Amino acid sequence: MSIAECLRWEPESEEDNVVVQGYVRSVRGMKTHRFVSLGDGSSLAPLQAVVPVDTNQAEGLAIGAAVRLTGKWVPSPGASQSHEMQVTQVDILGPSDAKTFPIQKKYQTPEYLRTIPHLRPRTPINAALLKMRSEAVAALTRFFAENHFTQTHPPILTSSDCEGAGEVFTVAPASNVTELSSNEDNKSKMFFRNKKYLTVSTQLHLEALAQSVGNVWTLSPVFRAEKSDTARHLSEFYMLEAEMSFVNDLDEVMDLAEDMIRNMCITMYESPTVYEFLNREGRVGSDLVSPEEVRARWEGMMADEWPRITYTDAIEFLQEHADEFEHKPVWTEGLHSEHEKFIAEHVGDGKPVFVTDYPRDIKAFYMREGQSLPDISSPGPTVECFDLLVPDLCEIAGGSMREHRLEPLLEAMKRHNIVAGEFTSSMDGNAPSEARTGPLDWYVDLRRWGCAPHGGFGIGFDRLLCYLTGVQTIRDMVSFPRWFGRCDC
Amino acid sequence: MSIAECLRWEPESEEDNVVVQGYVRSVRGMKTHRFVSLGDGSSLAPLQAVVPVDTNQAEGLAIGAAVRLTGKWVPSPGASQSHEMQVTQVDILGPSDAKTFPIQKKYQTPEYLRTIPHLRPRTPINAALLKMRSEAVAALTRFFAENHFTQTHPPILTSSDCEGAGEVFTVAPASNVTELSSNEDNKSKMFFRNKKYLTVSTQLHLEALAQSVGNVWTLSPVFRAEKSDTARHLSEFYMLEAEMSFVNDLDEVMDLAEDMIRNMCITMYESPTVYEFLNREGRVGSDLVSPEEVRARWEGMMADEWPRITYTDAIEFLQEHADEFEHKPVWTEGLHSEHEKFIAEHVGDGKPVFVTDYPRDIKAFYMREGQSLPDISSPGPTVECFDLLVPDLCEIAGGSMREHRLEPLLEAMKRHNIVAGEFTSSMDGNAPSEARTGPLDWYVDLRRWGCAPHGGFGIGFDRLLCYLTGVQTIRDMVSFPRWFGRCDC
Repeated sequence: MSIAECLRWEPESEEDNVVVQGYVRSVRGMKTHRFVSLGDGSSLAPLQAVVPVDTNQAEGLAIGAAVRLTGKWVPSPGASQSHEMQVTQVDILGPSDAKTFPIQKKYQTPEYLRTIPHLRPRTPINAALLKMRSEAVAALTRFFAENHFTQTHPPILTSSDCEGAGEVFTVAPASNVTELSSNEDNKSKMFFRNKKYLTVSTQLHLEALAQSVGNVWTLSPVFRAEKSDTARHLSEFYMLEAEMSFVNDLDEVMDLAEDMIRNMCITMYESPTVYEFLNREGRVGSDLVSPEEVRARWEGMMADEWPRITYTDAIEFLQEHADEFEHKPVWTEGLHSEHEKFIAEHVGDGKPVFVTDYPRDIKAFYMREGQSLPDISSPGPTVECFDLLVPDLCEIAGGSMREHRLEPLLEAMKRHNIVAGEFTSSMDGNAPSEARTGPLDWYVDLRRWGCAPHGGFGIGFDRLLCYLTGVQTIRDMVSFPRWFGRCDC
Repeated sequence: MSIAECLRWEPESEEDNVVVQGYVRSVRGMKTHRFVSLGDGSSLAPLQAVVPVDTNQAEGLAIGAAVRLTGKWVPSPGASQSHEMQVTQVDILGPSDAKTFPIQKKYQTPEYLRTIPHLRPRTPINAALLKMRSEAVAALTRFFAENHFTQTHPPILTSSDCEGAGEVFTVAPASNVTELSSNEDNKSKMFFRNKKYLTVSTQLHLEALAQSVGNVWTLSPVFRAEKSDTARHLSEFYMLEAEMSFVNDLDEVMDLAEDMIRNMCITMYESPTVYEFLNREGRVGSDLVSPEEVRARWEGMMADEWPRITYTDAIEFLQEHADEFEHKPVWTEGLHSEHEKFIAEHVGDGKPVFVTDYPRDIKAFYMREGQSLPDISSPGPTVECFDLLVPDLCEIAGGSMREHRLEPLLEAMKRHNIVAGEFTSSMDGNAPSEARTGPLDWYVDLRRWGCAPHGGFGIGFDRLLCYLTGVQTIRDMVSFPRWFGRCDC
């Protein structure tokens, strides 16, 4: 029986031979008894157990120890818990040296805990974060299965570094450290014949898979080698990406993103883990955003009809409040975080906000240029895309229609200085793909034969979890965080 | 409506204005009509549609094109399909140049298809493989959620290369290609301060997480930089790994592996995708193991009570048949694939076989040394571990009890020449973990404070899918396979 189950169990009479297992979180000594708090990660609250000293059972009950307790589950005289365990047998399964145990009962700073990522998950808050991540994944997997999306595993090692998503990592066998500085002449000695990279986004490969089975999704690690040192960035993080095929309207892509997040939140909201987390006393996890504030975020996420506003309208709205900003809102320059914050707060009213149709020239090459609709008048060409903004964290998701037509895609690549190889129809022989010259030739190929209109989005999964838990920095959301200069364990 | 749904739909009267979308798989021309086969990845069988030529609707119906067809769904005079579509409107959503389309209707060799991984998923068999992968993931996610396992995301970038699982990849920012050849003096210039690697197994990190929330699992990409060129190895593949905490008996770990696979197969067996795949005509996917043979594999997987045999007994059994092997079965030398094959066939009788308690000195350092049970007499020390063998593919999973006691673990590391740093209790200050000297010091730490007995296993997910689909090489199971010399797209 887990400790969470045990704590919910309120039998009318005393129950004998109850067995729980977990880790000693604290021991208070009395003359005749020890009061032990036991946790197993299933609940924030520990189980209170009373161990008589005289039977030698209390030995080894040190903070951090892994133990099995057997005893009676009886109504408790204390107020914090309806029942407590009167222990008749203690088994020390894994002893602990209380003096050196790095997670003492006293308050630990997040900075200190980050130096011991291998032990940090043992704190009750971090165990709850692990459980909520798991429940989020399960809810999403169910949502997509019910909506007939195919879950896929796009590659982590990729051939292209030119998606414009920032700095990338490259890989080589550890035994051949000079490989990465090899020039073209050494190609034959390289493990993969050319330089390969860790993926920054699975989108391009997802598009290929969407042409096979229609709607697809993935939850995949992605990597950025940026030297940024912020609360919102990691070098390794999980992205949830979805791609819809045979879809011609950006609204349908936004509907999916909205439905998915709302559905996930509604499912998770039923979970005992989430309930306990959102209703905990403020002093538990005092480094997090307060439970009250986080509950308001959930309400926004679970609400219907998230606002949608065009970028052009957003700029106009921001310009009306120009004196409130350090940076002047300018159509050609994109949104600064202060602008995103303002929109999230004043347009969203607690709900996430979609900002759509950004200027073409500040967005990625693969986004489809906007149709000129009579009701959209913008100062320049726009693309059919969106950013999803929430208060405090700003952008948590982005998506677009993809340019599915061959010629407009080639023109966009030229504008972005991305090399596209010449196409020759020798492909239907056995020519290795090496013969092509551009690293994205394969992506262009998708447009040569049967490319239906399609679109999709990507969402920073860890960042979304930060928002839903109130964790203030993404380094505390991920068990073994990696960022510039840090990659412990 | 998907094509799979449409094909299952047998209305009594004619139905008007039915809409389907998909890719033209073939067009046969008649004087007045075109017969079009349409596929969308939802089924192996295409939908048959009849398009009148005289209305100009037939233009653009080239092989490979993405189209929307609207028409009547009427009982079909042909035998292969109960209904067919009489098309009234054709919309070409993505045109195709039929002459250059690399996947013509004729038979393509697996070798040829591997040169165009971005287009290969469009073949009906490959679409079915994608859907079965997705259904497997969904079934596993549900299984573990129902059994209160926490799904986790252990890191991909890791600090250690010394698990003995073979050659590893190392990473560096693409803009700093000399980083990997840096020596210690250049540490401060490196992105992560020391060399970092792509994970070969998430097990060690999973063990840390199991000490937080109990039973955990993950389905994670792992990497090997080996130059092997076989049907069973890739440089990037997915591993399903699970770790159980507070478990002292290897049988419980094997029970989990067995229940998990059996449950997954039983769930998937209900799926229309799997049904169609296992009951297809042999000529569809002729490069695969025959449907009859693959159905027998499913029956073995879904059967109860898979045989369990100790390594020592297995060697004895093999020695009785020594004249059938090229390599003599020797206790100290492990099993050759011909031995594994023989055991899978003769002990398993169609079911997977667990072989347990291998010699200590041919297994990994973290495995717990066997207790001397009276009924096990072996020529030398053994470890509590198992390999799971199936016919043809041999090993698909491996697991063990982990050494959870500090001293025996340190001794095992010494035997394996793995450096362990000296422990000083300065850890409870703010000393960065860099101060420790061994790359696995953090793993040793897990034993210092509250390490309960625990064990787990890892299963090659792509290899398991090969077995359940009859795909003969793992390169054809994975959409964008990476192996020595090849990493396309």
